[in-house]
Amino acid sequence: MQPLIVSLGDRSYPIHIGPGLLDEAQLYARYVVSRSVVVVTNAAVAPLYLERVQRALVQAGARGVVPVLIEDGERSKSWATLDRVIDALLAARCGRDAVIVALGGGVVGDLAGFAAAVYQRGIDFIQLPTTLLAQVDSSVGGKTAINHARGKNMVGAFHQPLAVIADVATLDSLPDRELRAGIAEVIKHGCILDLQFVGWLEANMAKLLARDRAALGHAVRRSCELKVQVVAADERESGLRAILNFGHTFGHAIEAGVGYGEWLHGEAVATGMVMAAELSVRAGSLRREEADRVRALVAAAGLPVRGPALPAERYLELMQVDKKASGGRIRYIVLEGLGRAALRGDLDPDMVRQSIAAAAQ
Amino acid sequence: MQPLIVSLGDRSYPIHIGPGLLDEAQLYARYVVSRSVVVVTNAAVAPLYLERVQRALVQAGARGVVPVLIEDGERSKSWATLDRVIDALLAARCGRDAVIVALGGGVVGDLAGFAAAVYQRGIDFIQLPTTLLAQVDSSVGGKTAINHARGKNMVGAFHQPLAVIADVATLDSLPDRELRAGIAEVIKHGCILDLQFVGWLEANMAKLLARDRAALGHAVRRSCELKVQVVAADERESGLRAILNFGHTFGHAIEAGVGYGEWLHGEAVATGMVMAAELSVRAGSLRREEADRVRALVAAAGLPVRGPALPAERYLELMQVDKKASGGRIRYIVLEGLGRAALRGDLDPDMVRQSIAAAAQ
Repeated sequence: MQPLIVSLGDRSYPIHIGPGLLDEAQLYARYVVSRSVVVVTNAAVAPLYLERVQRALVQAGARGVVPVLIEDGERSKSWATLDRVIDALLAARCGRDAVIVALGGGVVGDLAGFAAAVYQRGIDFIQLPTTLLAQVDSSVGGKTAINHARGKNMVGAFHQPLAVIADVATLDSLPDRELRAGIAEVIKHGCILDLQFVGWLEANMAKLLARDRAALGHAVRRSCELKVQVVAADERESGLRAILNFGHTFGHAIEAGVGYGEWLHGEAVATGMVMAAELSVRAGSLRREEADRVRALVAAAGLPVRGPALPAERYLELMQVDKKASGGRIRYIVLEGLGRAALRGDLDPDMVRQSIAAAAQ
Repeated sequence: MQPLIVSLGDRSYPIHIGPGLLDEAQLYARYVVSRSVVVVTNAAVAPLYLERVQRALVQAGARGVVPVLIEDGERSKSWATLDRVIDALLAARCGRDAVIVALGGGVVGDLAGFAAAVYQRGIDFIQLPTTLLAQVDSSVGGKTAINHARGKNMVGAFHQPLAVIADVATLDSLPDRELRAGIAEVIKHGCILDLQFVGWLEANMAKLLARDRAALGHAVRRSCELKVQVVAADERESGLRAILNFGHTFGHAIEAGVGYGEWLHGEAVATGMVMAAELSVRAGSLRREEADRVRALVAAAGLPVRGPALPAERYLELMQVDKKASGGRIRYIVLEGLGRAALRGDLDPDMVRQSIAAAAQ
């Protein structure tokens, strides 16, 4: 199948989607011939795919392939783990022509991508996302980052990959909970950009949860198509791209409030979308029955529709420091009807408190 | 006086050069009105200029001005100090519209610039260089970085400032040794780009060392003009810009070999230029008497013309890991006549050993 193209001038790149792509040496060849390759992956993914990817890279003509294993989980998005990746690159005497391959989920992609962004002021990297979340969201768009004790993704860079290779066969090995967390971002793309896709998701949620290969393939492709449109129009998140944060302002507060790793990112975003839909109703831009469709879709995916037991004030405090806060005001992404989103910086904190309460324990 | 403009499309910016500019609130105003400002500086510079800069920033309309003091010296280009700056930004609840002001020499500029490059995936910054080295070199061109135990500037980003404000009156307080170290980069700009400027430096070295204000002003301006031409033609060091590393491949090896901080960067570059000139003679692209002019100019500036007691093999090993090593080959910048430079990747290691020996203890 033809790859999707992310159109960003001289930073344009293809997204290849399909089963079994991990092993296709000819896909890698144009990026790695005669170049040193460092594969960043984690202890959960390595036993499943590392050997196959290494074999394909060598077959594709890479000069050397060095694996770097990081710990599984959000805690790896840290200075310490970043330093370990940088150290491995230096130990392997990688120059500026080296290529990093990020093999894994969002954490691996964010960390390895950021290492690529800053190693010797920037080297190339390739995303090989192996989770649904990474395939439909985090591997697309060039956002890379690590976390800080005071907030998620507070240190990072916009750094576009050479290519994204999304092998949907890797989703077979994904735990159910992570599959559902990935579906949260798929739902998001429908809610903010494509009413028809929302309808498709309502009709096909059971198939997605049963890992029907064709349904998953369509969901990944449509999600990427939608996200790519937004990224191409606003690479560095100066405006439009902010709509991709629908559900994320609340979601990040949930993640930070309960401690990173307690809730999966997708779970926090799912509940965040319910809150943001409630806020949209209160802001007068979404009908009650549309908000109920958002909530029902989140529930159908087996995702949480209720937030953790945190006071509303704690949400507001956590959102204040979040990077979407600009000039002190918190800006929210609201739906203007299902399938359309907008950024609002003028919403009353009381309205926000009510929306949090509407999705409270 | 009219500022120099660094022409980089939508990343273009002015370099203002002159005495007393630190206090000129109207220079800052267009960049800081209603924005949070974090001034990164060090313990040596703060007592001299911090209060004046803070006053000018407040007068210019900044919403808040938070100073962050880092330790003096190359050791501050570390993960730990970077984290301190990031932490200060988060503690001050800075959003993406905050501005970092780098007040100090090259270390402050490199570190603060890198913090600006990665904080929330990139915020604005202004360079206020207070050393000659920073005014003629490190503050211009958008290179930011920190060091790694395995090599200098191994982690960083290309991130252009909003503006550079070079107050040449701050050079009055510069220790002699640092003044001379800055002159090394001035000599470099002449050697690689402007034979006439080499002649001017030979005639005016005594004035520069005596801190003649007019002579220093001319040296800063001409150096910036020369560097700006190169940066504008090759922002991300994919080709031409490499010539700015004349003397640096050897120089970095000296710095790493004796331990960072033992030799000043400019001192190591000075000796590195003598070695690179010797290499140019052996490579057949520079006449002996031209190499002698380089050596004499370095000596006239009171800079070292002989390297530290390191075996030639140690240099080669250290240069191998340096970022100018591409695909395993070490590439050298050689002079093709005085005032013109080129990149050579084909030079025999024996020729390199001889050139190091020619400038050995």
